[in-house]
Amino acid sequence: MVDWKHTDKNAPIGVFDSGVGGLTVVREIMRQIPNEKIIYFGDTARVPYGSKSKETVTRFSKQIVRFLNTFQVKTIVVACNTASAYALDELERESDIPIIGVVKPGTRAASEVTRNGRVGVIATEATIGSGIYSQYIAELNRDVTVYGKACPLFVPLVEEGLWVDPVTDEIAKRYLTELIDLNIDTLILGCTHYPLIRSTLARIMGEGVTLVNPAYETAMELRKLLSERGLLGDHAPALGENQYQFYVSDMADKFKNFANSIIKYGILSAKTIHIEEY
Amino acid sequence: MVDWKHTDKNAPIGVFDSGVGGLTVVREIMRQIPNEKIIYFGDTARVPYGSKSKETVTRFSKQIVRFLNTFQVKTIVVACNTASAYALDELERESDIPIIGVVKPGTRAASEVTRNGRVGVIATEATIGSGIYSQYIAELNRDVTVYGKACPLFVPLVEEGLWVDPVTDEIAKRYLTELIDLNIDTLILGCTHYPLIRSTLARIMGEGVTLVNPAYETAMELRKLLSERGLLGDHAPALGENQYQFYVSDMADKFKNFANSIIKYGILSAKTIHIEEY
Repeated sequence: MVDWKHTDKNAPIGVFDSGVGGLTVVREIMRQIPNEKIIYFGDTARVPYGSKSKETVTRFSKQIVRFLNTFQVKTIVVACNTASAYALDELERESDIPIIGVVKPGTRAASEVTRNGRVGVIATEATIGSGIYSQYIAELNRDVTVYGKACPLFVPLVEEGLWVDPVTDEIAKRYLTELIDLNIDTLILGCTHYPLIRSTLARIMGEGVTLVNPAYETAMELRKLLSERGLLGDHAPALGENQYQFYVSDMADKFKNFANSIIKYGILSAKTIHIEEY
Repeated sequence: MVDWKHTDKNAPIGVFDSGVGGLTVVREIMRQIPNEKIIYFGDTARVPYGSKSKETVTRFSKQIVRFLNTFQVKTIVVACNTASAYALDELERESDIPIIGVVKPGTRAASEVTRNGRVGVIATEATIGSGIYSQYIAELNRDVTVYGKACPLFVPLVEEGLWVDPVTDEIAKRYLTELIDLNIDTLILGCTHYPLIRSTLARIMGEGVTLVNPAYETAMELRKLLSERGLLGDHAPALGENQYQFYVSDMADKFKNFANSIIKYGILSAKTIHIEEY
C-alpha cells in the first residue's frame, strides 16, 4: 500500500482531529516544515468531542491511531485539544512511534510569555473539565496560575461562518469578562477552531493580553522532535506526488469546502472511511 | 431479561433521538398516554445528527433499533427529525414492529392548519437538505407549498441554555426573515430542540403564524396507531415498577440533568451503553 516504513524520514506525519479544526494545525505544519507529507483524519461522523466523556474520546482516538498507522506514519499529531487532554497519555503508552498533542506546546509557550503569572485558557467543556492545562503549568512553573473558561458556542459559531459578527462579539464578551476581571496577561486558544476568530478575541481582550495559538507552537515542537530524531523529511515531494491526503468519517464534500477556507493550498479531495471498523 | 413479548400490549415503547431533543417527544407521550412504558435511547456519543450524511445517520439508527429491540418493544418512535428524514423508510422495511417518525405527523398537522397554503419548516441542514417535508406535503395536498430553512445554531443555543436571550433573538431573526418575507402562515418546528425556544419563535413570527410542534402530533399519532392495533397499554404500571428507562451512549449524568429540565417527572438515572456494538 505504501513504499515506506514508519521509521523512514520520508514517511508521512499523521494528524487527526474530531473534525475540521485540526486543519489550523495542518496549516502551521505546511508552513513550518513544507517538505513533509501529511495524512489527515477528521472524525466528522462523531464530531464534536468537546462535550463528550474521557472514555468515549479515548475509544474514538485509539481507532483513529490504528487507522493512521496503516499508512506507516512516522509520528502522530493529536490536533485536537479535547483528545490531547483526555487520550494522549494512553495513546503514547501503546504507541511505537512518537505522538504529540497540542496542549503541552501551548502551555509551554504561555508559561514563557506571561509576565504576571496569570494565564487564561479558553477551550471546550471537556478540555477545561480535565484540568490538564493547570496540571501541565504546575509541572513547568509553580508561579504561574491558569484560569480556565469553557466556551461551548465558539465551535458552532465558527462552523456557521460567523468569524466576524456582532453575535460572536456578544458571546465572546460574555465568556471573556471573567478572564479580563482576573487580570490575565496571556490567553491560550485551547481549541483548534479558535484561531479562526482570533481578531475578535484579541480586540475584546485588549492590547495588554498576548494570545497563544497552540497550532503554531505544536508545529514548532513537531519540527524539533523530528529534527532530534533524524526524522525530518529531506526532499520536497516529487511533482504529482500526493503530499497531503485527507480522510474523514463522513461528509467529505462539506469537509473539503470548509478545508479550502482554512488552507490556501487547495484540497482537491477527501475520502470517507468507516472509522469504527479500526 | 423482560417478562413480555413485543406483541404484548403492555410491552414498552422504544423512543430514540440523537441526544436529548427527543425528550420533548417523550414528554408528550407521557402526557397523552400515561399508561405506557418507555425505553429511551439518546446517542450522546455521536450527537448531533443534523450535520451528518444519510448513510451515517441510517447506520447509526439501525444500531439503535437493534438495541431497542432487545427490550421487546411493541413499537418504535424515531423522535429525531434528521433520522426520520433519512432513515425511516429503511428502518420500516426491515422491521417486524411499527416504526413511526416525527416528520409525517408534523406535515399532516401543518397541511390541515394552513389557510394560505404557504408552510415554513425550520430544521437541521440534513432535514432541510433531504427535501422530505416538501415530498410529504406533495403527497398530502398539492395546493400547499413548503419553504425550508436550515437553522444550525438553534441546537447549540438551546443546549447552552439560552432559551430566552437576546443572542437567540438575533439569530432567530436572521433565520426567520426569509420565511416571514415569504408570507407563510404556518411554521413546523422541524427539530426536537425547537419547542424549547417556542416563545422566541412565536414572538418573531408574529400572531398570524401558527407554530406546529411535531412532538405533540407524533404522540397523537402514536396513540392512534396503538389503539387501532389493540396495543394500547391497559393498566398503569405497578408501584415501584420502572416505567421510564433512559439509555445513552455517553455522558449519562449530563443527560440526566438536561432531561430533568425538560421532563418534570424526575429522571432518577440514565445508563451508558456502547451503541456501536449493536
